[in-house]
Amino acid sequence: MNLACICHVMSTLLLVTGGSLLLPITCSLFYGGDDLWPLAVSACVISSAGLLLRLFFRHFSDLSFREGVLVAASGWVIISALSTLPFLLHGSIGSFTDAYFEMMSGYTTTGASILTDIEALPHGLLFWRSQTHLLGGMGFLTLTLIFLPHGMGSLRIFRAESSPGQVITREKFVARNRDAMIWLWAIYLSLNILQAGLLLLGGMDLFNALCTAFGTVSTSGYSPKNASIGHYGSAYIDWVVITFMFLGGITFLLYYQLLRGRLGSVVANTELRWYLVLLSAFCGAVSLDLWAAGTYESFAEALRFGTFQVTSLLTTTGFTTADYERWPQAAQMFLFVVCFIGACAGSTTSGIKVVHYVILCKYLVGAIKKIFIQPLSVVSVRLNGRPVEQAVIDLAVCYFVVNIFMVLLGGCVMVLSDRLDYLSAMSAVISSLMNIGPGFGAVGPSENFAFISDFGKWFLCFNMLVGRLEMFSVLIIFFPAFWRR
Amino acid sequence: MNLACICHVMSTLLLVTGGSLLLPITCSLFYGGDDLWPLAVSACVISSAGLLLRLFFRHFSDLSFREGVLVAASGWVIISALSTLPFLLHGSIGSFTDAYFEMMSGYTTTGASILTDIEALPHGLLFWRSQTHLLGGMGFLTLTLIFLPHGMGSLRIFRAESSPGQVITREKFVARNRDAMIWLWAIYLSLNILQAGLLLLGGMDLFNALCTAFGTVSTSGYSPKNASIGHYGSAYIDWVVITFMFLGGITFLLYYQLLRGRLGSVVANTELRWYLVLLSAFCGAVSLDLWAAGTYESFAEALRFGTFQVTSLLTTTGFTTADYERWPQAAQMFLFVVCFIGACAGSTTSGIKVVHYVILCKYLVGAIKKIFIQPLSVVSVRLNGRPVEQAVIDLAVCYFVVNIFMVLLGGCVMVLSDRLDYLSAMSAVISSLMNIGPGFGAVGPSENFAFISDFGKWFLCFNMLVGRLEMFSVLIIFFPAFWRR
Ligand SMILES: [K+]
Ligand SMILES: [K+]
Repeated sequence: MNLACICHVMSTLLLVTGGSLLLPITCSLFYGGDDLWPLAVSACVISSAGLLLRLFFRHFSDLSFREGVLVAASGWVIISALSTLPFLLHGSIGSFTDAYFEMMSGYTTTGASILTDIEALPHGLLFWRSQTHLLGGMGFLTLTLIFLPHGMGSLRIFRAESSPGQVITREKFVARNRDAMIWLWAIYLSLNILQAGLLLLGGMDLFNALCTAFGTVSTSGYSPKNASIGHYGSAYIDWVVITFMFLGGITFLLYYQLLRGRLGSVVANTELRWYLVLLSAFCGAVSLDLWAAGTYESFAEALRFGTFQVTSLLTTTGFTTADYERWPQAAQMFLFVVCFIGACAGSTTSGIKVVHYVILCKYLVGAIKKIFIQPLSVVSVRLNGRPVEQAVIDLAVCYFVVNIFMVLLGGCVMVLSDRLDYLSAMSAVISSLMNIGPGFGAVGPSENFAFISDFGKWFLCFNMLVGRLEMFSVLIIFFPAFWRR
Repeated sequence: MNLACICHVMSTLLLVTGGSLLLPITCSLFYGGDDLWPLAVSACVISSAGLLLRLFFRHFSDLSFREGVLVAASGWVIISALSTLPFLLHGSIGSFTDAYFEMMSGYTTTGASILTDIEALPHGLLFWRSQTHLLGGMGFLTLTLIFLPHGMGSLRIFRAESSPGQVITREKFVARNRDAMIWLWAIYLSLNILQAGLLLLGGMDLFNALCTAFGTVSTSGYSPKNASIGHYGSAYIDWVVITFMFLGGITFLLYYQLLRGRLGSVVANTELRWYLVLLSAFCGAVSLDLWAAGTYESFAEALRFGTFQVTSLLTTTGFTTADYERWPQAAQMFLFVVCFIGACAGSTTSGIKVVHYVILCKYLVGAIKKIFIQPLSVVSVRLNGRPVEQAVIDLAVCYFVVNIFMVLLGGCVMVLSDRLDYLSAMSAVISSLMNIGPGFGAVGPSENFAFISDFGKWFLCFNMLVGRLEMFSVLIIFFPAFWRR
């Protein structure tokens, strides 16, 4: 285990985080809130820690896969802990557990909040809260990689951070890794700026436009308003947010290929087609149900609210424009199912993801045919026109099954720790494991996570991290074989 | 497609069903109810239909796998339809849909009822209702096989009827098939008689003892009393029923091996160990929770009620002694999880079954290790001390995933057709697909299925059949490749 190397990466991580506090500090200066000194002190503390660590661990060599996994898992844990500093110093969030939950929820793009009155926070802190989405959405550590010396280690971190998606789509950048990261980040930031611009055109001020964009493109869901996007009550803003949630759910490599003029690989992308079909089907079903039940007066209204909520939950964003727990039961059932889908692999979304369903369905049909009807046939799963190897099928199966197991077991843990009703308990686990944010029942869209016990909050934080790192980069740490030489 | 052969098997099936009506007729004669002539007429009609069919299709040759599947699927559908005759002629169940639901629920050992007052039925009809469990519990068609000319066709039906369990455990009888069936049935009937005897000792009358035993060993759950086993309010009866539900959940081949003195293969049985561990763990957890929450005064009481309900749901029996929806939330969450487990393959139980979890867990651990930690390792799953082949792993994965998909999709169908709340909708699908009987919410232990719409009832019947035939013997009929030469 090359601890020096891990510390070197950590120091970069700390410096990036410390530096990124400059934006909320600027915001605080502009609005003149009392959160200036907490933000400034935090920036100093985090940057100094980073510099100190860098002094001791100047040397960087290649990372092994094991070190990459440890960096990924511990990086998120440590940065979330340090990011609580502004809130604790300012006093707007009293307990460390609450602040940690809020930050982990931000970085993992979950967007589940313990704040009962979001709008009471000063602008600088709100900006810092939303900015965690910007950092976390693209895979937190990828940002660090841009500042690291070149080397294969970067790719290892990148794969440890969002491994199954990257492995499965096999859409790896051929260019050098750092260039790849820069491209990814450029596309990501452009989408954020584009959305903020469109929101400004809709009459939002710059602060809200930026915060909302940070929460949308990263499919995260923190809003500076208590009523989420519902606060603005504007159809234009709703449709802009729907569009960018949808765009955030597309594999980012496809944008890169589009920029390079490779339209063919976008058209050939199996997952994108399924994503479009699934999204349209559920948006249509929920909108029709809302219209038929008379929840909204016109079909245009039903379509607007239905499409917003389906897109928000399917892409694991978690924004809300309506209390969907008052919707007809069929619409709620569809939303419950949608929570299990997730968007495309290699996007900013979390959840089970469409590609796993594509592989799973094709594998199921092939395997049943082989076992029962045509014993001599070969189970072949094709993705993007190419056959998929057995390891990838295994991974998709494991990913799906472990998700289901974790929801059922996690539900048991939550009822025991919090005496929630079991639907709310499972829903809390689903919404944190899939990084969605709001759930059903006691953790529904009009509620928050403030009432959860400390143990429950730490357990949900663990689920958020497991979900964000796509299960296995966290879970394999618990395998004894992982630690053996 | 050898239609003549299929008709020959059907004729045997009709004759067996018609003949089996002699027992409820005897019961009706003894109690002198007004259900004598409906039962007698039904027996005549069904037997005559069987005889007529036999006259036209005397010849029996071997069945192909495809014909075996068709016999299995259509046999259950047709016999359920004909078995409604006594109820329709007597008028105690007015609509054909309701009567069909009751009979399909009986034969598939689900035990979900549309009757609001069970005790209002005359004794003959109640006996007929419970007797469907006796016929269905051991795999309905296996009984027919005893009366068929010898041949490999029998094995094919047997495998089509409870295929995955049989394939997976690879515990095939080496003796000739008909002998095997006779052995299975002898063990099964002995268990029924033994339990009825023990219930008689507890002060039950013969009628109730037989009906209760039919519902227990077949892990089905119809009781002649409205309050199910709770009616008797006796700890002795509770523990007898717990014991025989547990015994009904064990692979029947193990009894056969025990009788032959092969204790080794019982001890080596992986599934049996996991079944014991899972059952004890959940019984313990629920009992402790009930005791800690003060739901029952003494620990003995909590253990009795907790163990009963966990065993009842885990073995997919569905008997109740308490309204568990008034229990603490943690206990309910455990019960919800237990519904997904099911007992051993090759037993009278349905549901996902322990063996699939054993294979799935071993496969998950192996695959994750191979993908992430030791790329050169081989994913090997061992069961009963022997390695398991890839086709069996595929089958276990397919079985689990298709079950989960069917619960989520079925929930959508049920909310649309019945405007149930989505928890009740999913629960109705779970309880019919896993052949459990009671569920949660609107289909909870103190409710019944009378209020479900006609479409909903037919859809649940379909789920019962799919669950009882272990998914694929029904589902592959919908594959175009199944019908191709
Ligand atoms: K989210
Ligand atoms: K049952």
